[in-house]
Amino acid sequence: MPEPLYLEDIFVDRRFHAGPVEVTTEEIKAFATKFDPQPFHLDETAATSSLFGELVASGWHTASLTMRLLTECAPFAGGLIGVGGKVEWLRPVRPGDLLSVEATILRISPSKSRDDRGMIKMRVVTANQRGEPVQRLDANVLAFRRPASD
Amino acid sequence: MPEPLYLEDIFVDRRFHAGPVEVTTEEIKAFATKFDPQPFHLDETAATSSLFGELVASGWHTASLTMRLLTECAPFAGGLIGVGGKVEWLRPVRPGDLLSVEATILRISPSKSRDDRGMIKMRVVTANQRGEPVQRLDANVLAFRRPASD
Repeated sequence: MPEPLYLEDIFVDRRFHAGPVEVTTEEIKAFATKFDPQPFHLDETAATSSLFGELVASGWHTASLTMRLLTECAPFAGGLIGVGGKVEWLRPVRPGDLLSVEATILRISPSKSRDDRGMIKMRVVTANQRGEPVQRLDANVLAFRRPASD
Repeated sequence: MPEPLYLEDIFVDRRFHAGPVEVTTEEIKAFATKFDPQPFHLDETAATSSLFGELVASGWHTASLTMRLLTECAPFAGGLIGVGGKVEWLRPVRPGDLLSVEATILRISPSKSRDDRGMIKMRVVTANQRGEPVQRLDANVLAFRRPASD
């Protein structure tokens, strides 16, 4: 595991990369069965008469895989704890797609009320194997200062 | 299944409700193992030394369960197809919590370029069994006009 990152280690424009991870038909359907049971996420034939015309992954599946990749490349001390963010799904994710993420630190705001932490805004672009962005997430995550005893 | 909703059926302040769904320890850990493998989502003991102090669900798990509940109560014709949104996690979700959603239509914007559809902004508040909001999502979803032949 890489060294945990404290607020002091994070700077604007610092980037993190992870992936690729393959999105399989089986996983698309398994995720959809639990969390987004719509025909275009569950069944190839039913999907042909949908807006997508083919089986595609739930956007929340893409978001969840993005989180998985973030945990692999951005080892914030105390964990990657998001308070929220803005997500946009830009293109469909299809069976066999290989997703990678690039996260870029956009802003660092030390907390005014709690001097042990700050808020980080990071842009997280998830792209497929052709480099096409499929999701853009601007996430707000906590970062903790290095304890004085370290 | 309820009748599918077309753009013409949707009005500002129209509300949709679904739930509750229970969030179990087993599901919290299963989701985290696949998508958010951090100690405070995976292991009760490890979680005690985290910011949360106890096992909590991944925010993306809450978001995914919210999607599940939305598919149960907002039967948009052609499916619930989100283009994105803004999500905020307001409180931790713990094992045994019962989550419900209330979705409220905030805005309806007919498409300027494609006369068969429009964009709906809906606020989706996910609350626990005490009525405390745990997530707020302002989502942008497509809605299709009723075909002339209907």
